[in-house]
Amino acid sequence: MPKKNAPLQMNHGRRRVIIERVSPEIDGGRFPIKRVPGEPVEVEADIFADGHDVISALLLYRSATELTWTELEMAPLPNDRWRATFRPREQGAWAYTVEAWLDHFKSWQRDLGKKTAAGQDVTVELQVGSALLTATAQRATGSDAETLRGWAAALAVSAPETLRRRIDLALSQELTELATSYPDRSTSTFYGHELRVTVDPLRARYGAWYELFPRSFASEPGAHGTFRDCEAQLPRIAEMGFDVLYLPPIHPIGTAFRKGRNNNPTAQPGEPGSPWGIGSHEGGHKAVHPELGTLETFRHLVEKARQFGLEVAMDIAFQCSPDHPYVHEHPEWFIKRPDGSIQYAENPPKKYQDIYPLNFETEQWQELWEELKSVFDFWIAQGVLIFRVDNPHTKSLRFWEWLIAEIKIEHPEAIFLSEAFTRPKLMYYLAKAGFTQSYNYFPWRNSKEELTEYLTEVTRTEVREFFRPNLWPNTPDILPQSLQAGGRPAFMSRFILAATLGASYGIYGPAYELCENTPRVRGSEEYIDSEKYEIKKWDLNASGNITGLIAKTNQIRRENPALHSNDRLVFHPVDNPQIIAYSKHSEDFDNIILTVVNLDPHHAQSGWVELAADRLQIPTSGNYQVHDLLTGARYLWSGMRNYVELNPSFFPAHVFRIRRKIRSERDFDYYM
Amino acid sequence: MPKKNAPLQMNHGRRRVIIERVSPEIDGGRFPIKRVPGEPVEVEADIFADGHDVISALLLYRSATELTWTELEMAPLPNDRWRATFRPREQGAWAYTVEAWLDHFKSWQRDLGKKTAAGQDVTVELQVGSALLTATAQRATGSDAETLRGWAAALAVSAPETLRRRIDLALSQELTELATSYPDRSTSTFYGHELRVTVDPLRARYGAWYELFPRSFASEPGAHGTFRDCEAQLPRIAEMGFDVLYLPPIHPIGTAFRKGRNNNPTAQPGEPGSPWGIGSHEGGHKAVHPELGTLETFRHLVEKARQFGLEVAMDIAFQCSPDHPYVHEHPEWFIKRPDGSIQYAENPPKKYQDIYPLNFETEQWQELWEELKSVFDFWIAQGVLIFRVDNPHTKSLRFWEWLIAEIKIEHPEAIFLSEAFTRPKLMYYLAKAGFTQSYNYFPWRNSKEELTEYLTEVTRTEVREFFRPNLWPNTPDILPQSLQAGGRPAFMSRFILAATLGASYGIYGPAYELCENTPRVRGSEEYIDSEKYEIKKWDLNASGNITGLIAKTNQIRRENPALHSNDRLVFHPVDNPQIIAYSKHSEDFDNIILTVVNLDPHHAQSGWVELAADRLQIPTSGNYQVHDLLTGARYLWSGMRNYVELNPSFFPAHVFRIRRKIRSERDFDYYM
Repeated sequence: MPKKNAPLQMNHGRRRVIIERVSPEIDGGRFPIKRVPGEPVEVEADIFADGHDVISALLLYRSATELTWTELEMAPLPNDRWRATFRPREQGAWAYTVEAWLDHFKSWQRDLGKKTAAGQDVTVELQVGSALLTATAQRATGSDAETLRGWAAALAVSAPETLRRRIDLALSQELTELATSYPDRSTSTFYGHELRVTVDPLRARYGAWYELFPRSFASEPGAHGTFRDCEAQLPRIAEMGFDVLYLPPIHPIGTAFRKGRNNNPTAQPGEPGSPWGIGSHEGGHKAVHPELGTLETFRHLVEKARQFGLEVAMDIAFQCSPDHPYVHEHPEWFIKRPDGSIQYAENPPKKYQDIYPLNFETEQWQELWEELKSVFDFWIAQGVLIFRVDNPHTKSLRFWEWLIAEIKIEHPEAIFLSEAFTRPKLMYYLAKAGFTQSYNYFPWRNSKEELTEYLTEVTRTEVREFFRPNLWPNTPDILPQSLQAGGRPAFMSRFILAATLGASYGIYGPAYELCENTPRVRGSEEYIDSEKYEIKKWDLNASGNITGLIAKTNQIRRENPALHSNDRLVFHPVDNPQIIAYSKHSEDFDNIILTVVNLDPHHAQSGWVELAADRLQIPTSGNYQVHDLLTGARYLWSGMRNYVELNPSFFPAHVFRIRRKIRSERDFDYYM
Repeated sequence: MPKKNAPLQMNHGRRRVIIERVSPEIDGGRFPIKRVPGEPVEVEADIFADGHDVISALLLYRSATELTWTELEMAPLPNDRWRATFRPREQGAWAYTVEAWLDHFKSWQRDLGKKTAAGQDVTVELQVGSALLTATAQRATGSDAETLRGWAAALAVSAPETLRRRIDLALSQELTELATSYPDRSTSTFYGHELRVTVDPLRARYGAWYELFPRSFASEPGAHGTFRDCEAQLPRIAEMGFDVLYLPPIHPIGTAFRKGRNNNPTAQPGEPGSPWGIGSHEGGHKAVHPELGTLETFRHLVEKARQFGLEVAMDIAFQCSPDHPYVHEHPEWFIKRPDGSIQYAENPPKKYQDIYPLNFETEQWQELWEELKSVFDFWIAQGVLIFRVDNPHTKSLRFWEWLIAEIKIEHPEAIFLSEAFTRPKLMYYLAKAGFTQSYNYFPWRNSKEELTEYLTEVTRTEVREFFRPNLWPNTPDILPQSLQAGGRPAFMSRFILAATLGASYGIYGPAYELCENTPRVRGSEEYIDSEKYEIKKWDLNASGNITGLIAKTNQIRRENPALHSNDRLVFHPVDNPQIIAYSKHSEDFDNIILTVVNLDPHHAQSGWVELAADRLQIPTSGNYQVHDLLTGARYLWSGMRNYVELNPSFFPAHVFRIRRKIRSERDFDYYM
């Protein structure tokens, strides 16, 4: 029960408005949603009260650096739902919540109107209004207060002959506007939670990634490639239109239990080992593999890449080779076995003796956390802003939540890509706990049904608020069956799917653009002679490469804002299960991209695309132009059902820009 | 970041398990769910962790009077979901939550099995196990500790010839059972919320209500009926099989602006007024209307009713006639107008000058709340346990949440029925805030589609956890169009729908059993010559009454546990939109009731009922008997599609008990 005479509680019982089911809200406000600057946050809430008084509601929002809330009026929707939308201006942490109250001025004015319309005597009502305006004047200052006091006096005049004039004043727009700008919020209800937004840089939402192993790009045959050699690749990668250059771990590689070619348990002398077998006497996670170069040449690569419009992304894999300095400097961070050895990684009966996992249950977990954070701090100091985190689902989830939040306080521009190919709830949890972007199930979603269902889940449900998929058709670990079986047409179609379904996507090259598709053994997703274990020599000009398609598609991505977000992805029915069609459009519908892909790499397929015209603001009848940005071809389409035919041996997809025939000066060059 | 050297935080980072999305959970644990003693609470949660260790999870539950949790092991379901079910034993407040941890003993044992199966050397693993058992022994006491220490020593023996024996011991059921009963919970994760259950008496879930106006049952014609007269009705009401006798307000009725016959704004001298116009110089909410009797005769009625198996429910309507003692004793609880008058109720342009609403925004809200609570306390002291609350949606919602919680601390047996015919979110909020049962939209759900959709919403979604519908086909305020138009067949079918769809239902009689269906004016839902404003004389034996059907149906309800809950309501397809079919069954499927109703009051209808056999555990082929408990007729049905034909002028419904042909001694009398 309310404590009597407890002043702070005094108004509790008078706050009659209820606010509930605010959205977006992840797990009761436990986790922030994600946005980039300028992106809308559409906030809704159930707001209601006992009785029939008029409710006023505000959306309150602010950045972490602001002391006061910015206020936005919420508008009522049907069924006691209310809505307002704000756009966080810059990177960093933001918060929002909702306030609402019963607005006695508005209730009075509404009822006065009804009573007047019914011809009732409103003499006393005008006196009530006068009192309300007097109270309003006390919340106002300066000339506003004076005006309100004047109106309060005018309404209270008792002369019957002025009645009509007083009613008109009471209902006037001028009075309404001034009076409602000083509402009585003394019995406001505040929603209990301050909900959080993590506002990331645009690159968190939109970017094309390219992964390569620098050691394979030596200018001299047989040599170990260096950061300098990698710099020589920058023009080619930039010409292909990528935004992020992602490098596998660059740290010293251990020698104990080093893996040989094709994952052989024992490396032959001279074999380079896997970059993920991190740490040797040359250093650990803060060192550079000597054969790649030095900290200085690494920083040079980062800077040089930036000149080509490329951001370097590092791989952070928190595991240690038996030679890693942590093993003897901090044996307490590992599990010791009764025979004195250190526990290697295993998934019984499989053993990974080249890897010592860190023990996140160590009693020295605080020191461990701080040290691992210092690894990120170290590389941020070298100029790195993007981190691809290896297997985060095998490290403590609470650690990631703490780490990313800590780093983002000082570096809101940092981006963390979660490489967790694991069970759905764990994958989503990592995103909720802070990862900016996430690898996902795209490599194994091939049919129209699978693609539609999965992309709908991640772009049209609550998942979209915290999980940003980065679509990779291949990785050094994953050569999907679809590419193995489908060959070049599949490499083309899977690329176009990734680059148009996903505002963020990536490929592991040059394996991808060269359509490398031989697995180690039948049924495996491992590449034969995987670059993970050996230095490769790539013939970048080999015939059949799809470099041109990649460059063209990335150019289309840059030029069309529709492709910079996943927020407005719409699937359109096609009467052929082998053809998938979907659109994205800009917020203002000015830029609409319709992609149509033949998923069958072996046969030409045709069908009728049925556009969900209402969702694209296209008139449902009449002609309009679709312009294939890949080939330059233009077609005149008519109505909502139109024919497409795609031959995979030529080109497996259309990427259409839909040009609505609306005459305005902006559309002047439509048919030029 | 975690504060260093803060002992209470020490283990935070080592708690690797995540627990989320616990269900049932209403609004993040803001509100309790509802149950009756013995009813299951099926608790589920997403539980997972980084890595591949084995998880152990417990459901913890307790009553408010217990200091320690009872623990129940949760079982894993697919997709990282876990489940356990508990049953609160008695009325009152209960709580539940979830605990989980990585179980290193179980992980070790699982891996030992895999390694042994793969023929690997497990010498060191057995030493690891020995250490785990030594630690386990430290958590055990007495002979258990001794046994565990013995096993720890046995596993650590180094003689190779004992290896097989040690492995067998390590994997033995005996060792497993003892070791897993002393788990290491030092790094347990606890779900953040203690979720609450309000455990109400069975009558909260299941009961047949009968409403009457005592003043209409005087033994002498024209006189004002009394509680004594009402006692004379008890045998008849009990014979009809009702459980609750609900009386409109029994307080003194005001005279100022008293309403006359048919809601006439001015009563003629001698007219009795509406029982909802509460308060006069004879008293307010704690007084008895002198013409009905005294506190003593009221208590006598309550006791007498109990002898007939009937609980008396009172109507609490928190509003005041202008003559109510509160008006002069506590003018601060009302809104004063500038002319000195007190603000009457209104919904402009309509005025309700006979009613002064209480002002829940008064600065004396604490005193007001306490006084209103004392009204309930007063009547509980007279023996009343059930309250029907009039228009709770026009009083402060926070007030109800406080009031019901306060009263339930001392009187968990109290039942509060919310009479809120209002917007859906407000209606549901009142239930979340504490109301035990709720009036609802049943009076206006007539078609098969409407009934199916609405009953599915309230019995198959989260709503079922907090909202218990009480289905009323009529009330003194509501004579639905369906009854006006459908006459006696509609009274029969709507009654059977209410009594079989709803574990709780009620009728306003004798208007209902006499099929009174004349509205005040066409298009109105008000009764002509409404009993709200005048004393009626009912001819209880009038021809065409459906008293027999009511008595039979209530008998069926009592004898069939399937009808005591809404939890297992299943709708079955019928190929005729005028026929609705649905079943309920007991938790053990022993009692299955299939109701089939012709919704057309004018024509015979026939169709094929398609039973969802899997949901009733009926074999999908072969014969079984359906026994119409209303008429006594028995039919042999075969397979899942069976024919029904219902003539409303004879009987608009079947209430079948399905007798599955399973031979057991329990089924001996099936065909007798």
